[in-house]
Amino acid sequence: MRRNAYGEPSPARMSIRDLLFGRPLRTEEEQTQRIGPIRGVPLLGLDALASAAYGPEAALTVLLPLGLLSARYIAPLSAVIIVLLGLVSFSYRQTIAAYPNGGGSYTVASTNLGTLAGLIAASALCVDFVLNAAVAISAGVGAIVSAVPALLPYTLPICLVVLAMLTVVNLRGVRESGYVFMIPTYLFVACMGAMLAWGIAKSLASHGHPVPVVSVPHPAPAVQAASAWLLFRAFASGCTAMTGVEAVSNGVPVFKAPTVRLAARTLMLIVGALAVMLAGIAYLSFTFHVAATPPGARGYESVLSQLFAAVAGRGAFYYVGIVAIVSVLCLSANTSFAGFPRLCRVLALDEFLPPEFAHPGRRLVYSAGIVVLAVLAAALLVAFGGITDRLIPLFAVGAFLAFTVSQAGMVVHWRRVGGRRARRSLAVNALGALATGITLVVVIVSKFVDGAWITVLLIAALVGVFRAIRRNYDRVDEQTDVEGPLQLGEPPPPVVLVPLKRLDRVARKSLRLAITMSPDVRVIHVLTGEHDMDDLRGRWSQFVERPLRAAGFPVPTLVPLHSPYREFFDPLLEYIHQLAAEQPRRYIAVLVPELVERRWYHWLLHGHRPTLLKGLLLLRGGPRVIVINAPWYLRDDDDEDHTASPSVRVVR
Amino acid sequence: MRRNAYGEPSPARMSIRDLLFGRPLRTEEEQTQRIGPIRGVPLLGLDALASAAYGPEAALTVLLPLGLLSARYIAPLSAVIIVLLGLVSFSYRQTIAAYPNGGGSYTVASTNLGTLAGLIAASALCVDFVLNAAVAISAGVGAIVSAVPALLPYTLPICLVVLAMLTVVNLRGVRESGYVFMIPTYLFVACMGAMLAWGIAKSLASHGHPVPVVSVPHPAPAVQAASAWLLFRAFASGCTAMTGVEAVSNGVPVFKAPTVRLAARTLMLIVGALAVMLAGIAYLSFTFHVAATPPGARGYESVLSQLFAAVAGRGAFYYVGIVAIVSVLCLSANTSFAGFPRLCRVLALDEFLPPEFAHPGRRLVYSAGIVVLAVLAAALLVAFGGITDRLIPLFAVGAFLAFTVSQAGMVVHWRRVGGRRARRSLAVNALGALATGITLVVVIVSKFVDGAWITVLLIAALVGVFRAIRRNYDRVDEQTDVEGPLQLGEPPPPVVLVPLKRLDRVARKSLRLAITMSPDVRVIHVLTGEHDMDDLRGRWSQFVERPLRAAGFPVPTLVPLHSPYREFFDPLLEYIHQLAAEQPRRYIAVLVPELVERRWYHWLLHGHRPTLLKGLLLLRGGPRVIVINAPWYLRDDDDEDHTASPSVRVVR
Repeated sequence: MRRNAYGEPSPARMSIRDLLFGRPLRTEEEQTQRIGPIRGVPLLGLDALASAAYGPEAALTVLLPLGLLSARYIAPLSAVIIVLLGLVSFSYRQTIAAYPNGGGSYTVASTNLGTLAGLIAASALCVDFVLNAAVAISAGVGAIVSAVPALLPYTLPICLVVLAMLTVVNLRGVRESGYVFMIPTYLFVACMGAMLAWGIAKSLASHGHPVPVVSVPHPAPAVQAASAWLLFRAFASGCTAMTGVEAVSNGVPVFKAPTVRLAARTLMLIVGALAVMLAGIAYLSFTFHVAATPPGARGYESVLSQLFAAVAGRGAFYYVGIVAIVSVLCLSANTSFAGFPRLCRVLALDEFLPPEFAHPGRRLVYSAGIVVLAVLAAALLVAFGGITDRLIPLFAVGAFLAFTVSQAGMVVHWRRVGGRRARRSLAVNALGALATGITLVVVIVSKFVDGAWITVLLIAALVGVFRAIRRNYDRVDEQTDVEGPLQLGEPPPPVVLVPLKRLDRVARKSLRLAITMSPDVRVIHVLTGEHDMDDLRGRWSQFVERPLRAAGFPVPTLVPLHSPYREFFDPLLEYIHQLAAEQPRRYIAVLVPELVERRWYHWLLHGHRPTLLKGLLLLRGGPRVIVINAPWYLRDDDDEDHTASPSVRVVR
Repeated sequence: MRRNAYGEPSPARMSIRDLLFGRPLRTEEEQTQRIGPIRGVPLLGLDALASAAYGPEAALTVLLPLGLLSARYIAPLSAVIIVLLGLVSFSYRQTIAAYPNGGGSYTVASTNLGTLAGLIAASALCVDFVLNAAVAISAGVGAIVSAVPALLPYTLPICLVVLAMLTVVNLRGVRESGYVFMIPTYLFVACMGAMLAWGIAKSLASHGHPVPVVSVPHPAPAVQAASAWLLFRAFASGCTAMTGVEAVSNGVPVFKAPTVRLAARTLMLIVGALAVMLAGIAYLSFTFHVAATPPGARGYESVLSQLFAAVAGRGAFYYVGIVAIVSVLCLSANTSFAGFPRLCRVLALDEFLPPEFAHPGRRLVYSAGIVVLAVLAAALLVAFGGITDRLIPLFAVGAFLAFTVSQAGMVVHWRRVGGRRARRSLAVNALGALATGITLVVVIVSKFVDGAWITVLLIAALVGVFRAIRRNYDRVDEQTDVEGPLQLGEPPPPVVLVPLKRLDRVARKSLRLAITMSPDVRVIHVLTGEHDMDDLRGRWSQFVERPLRAAGFPVPTLVPLHSPYREFFDPLLEYIHQLAAEQPRRYIAVLVPELVERRWYHWLLHGHRPTLLKGLLLLRGGPRVIVINAPWYLRDDDDEDHTASPSVRVVR
């Protein structure tokens, strides 16, 4: 895109790209992109808040065999989860203060526990972010199509459209994403709050025995008694309610000053709302005797839908609430878009990913990470046809691995800091590490055969990839880094080779260029049998040698190369290798003229040989073979004038 | 592939390519690749001979509504077709003698009737060749899978395997193709001859009323009387028996000396065998009361299968005959492989196709045409799932269009030649042109709605493509062709631009190279905000300016470019365009160093920026911007030594 004299995009050239993604932002505008907690909660908290919609449901689903009794166990399970949530969020609050540049678990772990621990946390989060993006969209779209069955055949396209919209919004920048997600987020919080308050009031007024407005489905009779193993599994499933809590610590730099204070406040708002919702849902499930219904079977109704109907009946409020829940489920994929690119950026700064991931794009977001996440999530959605239920057991392992590593890292951090306050924090973090570690073991053990083993393998593989990338960069740096003054040889001018077929304008331009660069020019004519040598040789002396000699230039040597197998490249490369062996101190410059085509279909008609030749010379030429690529523009397509190039006959 | 000192492939490096396609052939070995009629018949005649298997069947199928009466009409229809065949083959025999360089209809038509007529013939043949390759394979494989129903789900893969085998055999060269197809071809001719002779003997011995060994299926009763329109359509369908006759005239140059005589003898052998088979089939259908069975319905049995069973019973001979018929049907696709690449070669020599089509490949065949044919046929097979029945009505239009144009061309040819013998030939060709022209009209009219209109459109489109390609080459030639001596300007040395980020080894190599090429070197540092300018500037004076000044070299200018939008390419291109405007007579050489990676996955980690920069400079730089591409090899992957490049400090 062209810019005017001030570097602003000139409005006459306002492109589709500008319309879709917004005008490019100057580096100095970074401050204007920063946000406060009002936008921070939607941007970084959607996943955590949406957990309220599926965490308790997941736990209750595991408790299905207990029948009516399941409602009795949801309260203690939720209590344990809320305590764990408190520990984890306390830890992340400390992390935000200690590492205000973002990065969360990865930064904490690699600073305090070493690179390997950091990479394990990073891999775990990467896997979780990608899974979350696909599963959240698929869950939200699943709820929509089950409400409007006519849309069922279009599940996958709808998923991909939602994904594309999220991608575009995030590429537009931080401020706009926070803005777009404000309405659904706060609508969800408001509806949930109203429903919970109303329900709790009814329960209290009726001394714990409220009458549901719409009676809840009667659960199937109990088929087994509560066992430790069942409760373990219910707890592991319920823990999915905690995923997404780490997002704020990854995104600290998006907050305006006072950055740490605003980030911490945002985290507390998110965790507070989540804890209240979890507690309220547990209490109302108990008093209204709400149990899960078997998913995928006839008569399925989500726990929240039952609660809304039991508390408020199926009126306008019910439907607003359900719409809010579905949109938050769908948009909770956005937490991945907020977290993943920033995590990738920190990894790229440490050279565990290519530098593109650390480059702020035209809207000052890390576009490479956003695009990669979108591509991976799209691949998952396509692979599973838009229905990602089978991916759900892969969840939570990543989050709890990151929690555990992060808290363990904070323990080491406080030990290093020392002091009385630090000791108290250390104790809390140690308790948190222990609790999340145990939870991690419970989650892995109880979900291992369902697919958690895949997550474990993926995380291990990703750690390997990160280390391989870093090794590669280290190797290149080692080869290319050098200190001290520039070493100067006495470099003789390069030998310039000009491969020629005919003496047309393109060839003449190359020859004129070559003789300005070196006195040692060799014209290579590969005899593939298609063209007659005699033709070129006759015209050579007449049209090239004589005028050059007359003008006092050194005359290029004409080198015919015989090609018994009619190949062009092999004889040329062989000649170059010979020349390189004979002249061990000189550069060999190969002049490759190229017809520049302005239409794609021209590419089919010309232009294979120069492209192939350039690639071959680069890959197989050796370190002293350089390629000089000179373009030839067809006049029709070019507004510049060829006669500007030197073509006046000169008397020396 | 490396070659030894004699240019032969060294056996130590014998590659998979050599195993699959054979060792490369030297240009001088071309004579050894030439063949005689024994191999010529299988190579160029398979399609024509296989026509005997489907031509009469196609005519009889159209006659189905006549019931038992259909056998009465097949004899006169076959007689007309055989006469037409005689006329056409007489014409092609003349063509072979007059145009021994191959090209057939295209050469005849463009020489005598003008380019447009030639292109129409060429397009018609191209369409027919591609259709034939797909339909023949699909027909042969269809016969196999209907015999072995377990293979039915694998129809498409089997088709593609057969296609791949034909492609490889043809890429191996002319001699080997002729050799591979000898056994099925002569087995087919022998079986057909034996069956026909035996059947005719039986018929004669029984005074025209032989008793079939296996009784033939009784046809359905007649539902209509013979109408002119029905007979027309039967004739048009039966004419598919004549496709493939032009192949010899396209392939004349594959014959050894005396080329014309051997080619003409091959054509006569093919046409003679075909005529005998057509006549025999017609006679036996009549005496044995063989009618077609409805294709695709239960109880379907091909006419040849009925005849073999009626004459010889279902013994070993029957099965050998059927196997021969099926393999010839399948392999008749090879005629396309023999004709299409040679037609493309002639078109490429006249610049209606890219020059690659005229380049003899490593085995002295026109590999580009073979590969393109294989790709197109594979696309058709995949698009139709390996069952190409719907393509059959598209046939024959191309062949008869080519016949007509070719014969009309020969009429003009004889008029130009003059003399008594020429007048007689002229009369025959004029009659032939008339007859094939009428047949063409019949074929188009009777098959128009079934799909012949697609063929007509395709041929017209292809003519347009050929002309567009030629126009493009003409335009390029007009721009680049020039006569006279080399014009010499007094070109000042180019401005050499070196975009730099850090002063690493790669950058230092570029600097050393740049100062040998021009005294005017400018180092461009684009400030994208990722790296600190001060760092480079401080080291610049210490590590670059000072040693260069000490050694007496001109010092490059350091040009910092501010990039408010963090982009690299835009500021650089803008600077180059400014420079080009300021210095209208000088070349601007941009030095692009590039890390050469030896493993594909390295490409993911490095190397986007140089590739993009080279492309942008070439496309958008303008005619005076040239790219100098200098490779940097990582030592681990490279057996050459970097220290060979000049890096010794020198005192001047």
